[in-house]
Amino acid sequence: MTQLRHLKRLLAAGDPAAFRSAFLELHSWEQAQFFLNLNRSERLALYDVLSASAVGNFFDDIDDDDQQIPNFLAEMRPEFAAQMLTEMYVDNAVDILEHLDKPTINRLLAQMPHQVAMDMRSLLHYDDETAGAIMTTEFIAIAANQTLASAMYALREKADDAELIYYVYVLDNAKHLAGIISLRDLIVNDQETLVQDIMNERVISVQVTDDHESVAQTIRDYNFFAIPVTDDENHLLGIITVDDIIDIIDDEAASDYSGLAGVDVEDTSENPLKAAAKRLPWLVTLLFLGMSTASLINHYESLVSEASVLAVFISLITGTAGNAGTQSLAVAVRRLAFPDQERSFVQSLLAELVTGVVTGVVTGVTITLVVGFWKHSFILGFVIGLAMCCAIIVANLAGSFIPGFMARLGFDPAVASGPFISTLSDLTSVLIYFSIAQYFIASFVN
Amino acid sequence: MTQLRHLKRLLAAGDPAAFRSAFLELHSWEQAQFFLNLNRSERLALYDVLSASAVGNFFDDIDDDDQQIPNFLAEMRPEFAAQMLTEMYVDNAVDILEHLDKPTINRLLAQMPHQVAMDMRSLLHYDDETAGAIMTTEFIAIAANQTLASAMYALREKADDAELIYYVYVLDNAKHLAGIISLRDLIVNDQETLVQDIMNERVISVQVTDDHESVAQTIRDYNFFAIPVTDDENHLLGIITVDDIIDIIDDEAASDYSGLAGVDVEDTSENPLKAAAKRLPWLVTLLFLGMSTASLINHYESLVSEASVLAVFISLITGTAGNAGTQSLAVAVRRLAFPDQERSFVQSLLAELVTGVVTGVVTGVTITLVVGFWKHSFILGFVIGLAMCCAIIVANLAGSFIPGFMARLGFDPAVASGPFISTLSDLTSVLIYFSIAQYFIASFVN
Repeated sequence: MTQLRHLKRLLAAGDPAAFRSAFLELHSWEQAQFFLNLNRSERLALYDVLSASAVGNFFDDIDDDDQQIPNFLAEMRPEFAAQMLTEMYVDNAVDILEHLDKPTINRLLAQMPHQVAMDMRSLLHYDDETAGAIMTTEFIAIAANQTLASAMYALREKADDAELIYYVYVLDNAKHLAGIISLRDLIVNDQETLVQDIMNERVISVQVTDDHESVAQTIRDYNFFAIPVTDDENHLLGIITVDDIIDIIDDEAASDYSGLAGVDVEDTSENPLKAAAKRLPWLVTLLFLGMSTASLINHYESLVSEASVLAVFISLITGTAGNAGTQSLAVAVRRLAFPDQERSFVQSLLAELVTGVVTGVVTGVTITLVVGFWKHSFILGFVIGLAMCCAIIVANLAGSFIPGFMARLGFDPAVASGPFISTLSDLTSVLIYFSIAQYFIASFVN
Repeated sequence: MTQLRHLKRLLAAGDPAAFRSAFLELHSWEQAQFFLNLNRSERLALYDVLSASAVGNFFDDIDDDDQQIPNFLAEMRPEFAAQMLTEMYVDNAVDILEHLDKPTINRLLAQMPHQVAMDMRSLLHYDDETAGAIMTTEFIAIAANQTLASAMYALREKADDAELIYYVYVLDNAKHLAGIISLRDLIVNDQETLVQDIMNERVISVQVTDDHESVAQTIRDYNFFAIPVTDDENHLLGIITVDDIIDIIDDEAASDYSGLAGVDVEDTSENPLKAAAKRLPWLVTLLFLGMSTASLINHYESLVSEASVLAVFISLITGTAGNAGTQSLAVAVRRLAFPDQERSFVQSLLAELVTGVVTGVVTGVTITLVVGFWKHSFILGFVIGLAMCCAIIVANLAGSFIPGFMARLGFDPAVASGPFISTLSDLTSVLIYFSIAQYFIASFVN
């Protein structure tokens, strides 16, 4: 903190050399944090003092979803912005370009070296959320019939531009991915060995059109630092590194969590009015869904006026069934994210039915006894208990069925949010409750 | 799949050479998947056919939380098990040992080479969930006054044992961590250069007692493949690699998600009765908490019998307030996981108050109009709307206050689960609703 203030003072003091030497001491992530804390005039001063390459270096560490990035680029001189993007890792630069409008992209690309602009253009056209959209083209490729010594020489030449030099990819004459060797293999083996003699030919790779979440799963399973990306003819197009995968895992977790809560939790630091605007559509939608529950109760109003004790247990039954539904929803969403090959969708539903019946019966018996003793009426207790048991079973089934159903329709199962399930289960719970109560009403109203 | 069946057949056929050559072709993660699909007698056949080193190689890829691991070790000959653990990466072997009982651990350690047993003992005594518990001691360290050529020589010697050779750590005479150089720096620079001339002296490291989640955050921020772990005198004790961090991020996300749902979502593939047993304690606890809401409504029963229309809106008000509370809970838990330095706890609460007031007023006005037109009574609508507005504000504040409060008490904020907040908010919502209704009752009952 004091260090950052010190740096700001150096920047304001207009002593470029002193600022530069202190700033460049920092790790690029710290430089990015410092930069994000500057105001506009401080940023303009910084662009004057640093080279485009130095700025590009820490722009690699700014989250590409940061909504200020287009402003940052707009306030730089166009040649400076283009040069800075050129200096960045190509996948990160493309992630930034994707947030800009077409004319701006074209203007920036026009000022870059031809080869870089071509690379970026080719990456720009991959669909969002595919392997192609997160890969980089800055990998190191060698030929199978090279010696390790010459491969090492090629590696040294390209090491500065590559995002990761831990794996070296071996291509055949037609640029197909033929093998992989790690830098470890390169340095421990005799330098006169041929690459083809020690390369691993069973390369685990992903397709350029694969969903980015399945890529993340593969890297996580195999504990890779990077994975090659190929087209359907096995041409090597790029690589995906583990740091980009961590961001995807984070986003995936955040979106599952958001789904369960009915709110986008990734917008945490914005102003409270905007936060309200984000939450209201969902709340009001659920309010209208809840109105159907209210009108159902309204339908049974004569029953309530006959036995006002029924009103006492409405929120208990809807609440408990809602809790049970949320539990089974969460388990179902998780199961879809980490599929269990041994169980089919129907088997999962059956298992959840058993779980629902057991939890329903135990909870139902408990509340029967509690209400029986409290209200001195075991018939009333039985009505409440039976209703709760049925409501829990239905909510459990809905919670476990809906995400799988969404997934089959091609939607993200996490959009079957917790609040939605609870509100839906309110409706069925009330219907079950009053149907049962109506049947038994003569027995417990004196 | 056919490949796995083919392998099983080779194993059953008792042709060790054919099985071995096919099996060793697989990536270690695939080997682990194959192994986990075997029954006991197949596993025993496998231990006979493979070397302890080959088995250790894929045991590195089995999740250490897998509850079958102690059985696997018990069915191996003790010397085989000890040798297998010796061949594993030391951090993974220790993760396995941590799940065994003391006598078994000692018996296994006694059969290992002295140095390995010492390393494992030293790692075993670190507290769970600290950097010490997840680090490995298999890193590569060199001296500052070596040339790059001699460093490279040392690297070649140790490369086979090290978990990661991408970073090489530089120690001073007293074994303090003095710098770091990447393998990239090692190979691109002139081999006669001294290590101290190109090493990076500003090493980002973590303390051995640091919480593992904060280590994960640091690695994620800086995009590292590994981070060094030191004691409070800056002696290098080990390194933590990014693959272990991914597991922590996953576990963290799963536990936040579980908290919000009130169920441990990591137990998905077990049998439905066990699943019910896991969910029931939480459901029944909430049931009793819900009973306090029921007895509160019971307290107002005369009010309900006077105006049974009040019963119609109970679940609408409790449900909507519960949804709002879950939203603000989720945002608060997420904010605690990714702290925003610019905002204090009090500022966050104030912001959430503003959000609560805005969402409350909008939702309240909406329902006032809906009920007013539906029931031809804008006074009744106003009662419902005012109650909903207040209930939302209270639920919002509770949802955002409780996780922070839990964190300050030293608990995991995610234990403030969604169902708990909803059930609690049922209670306050009902209290608010009937208090307001009681005040206005004369105006809307004819």
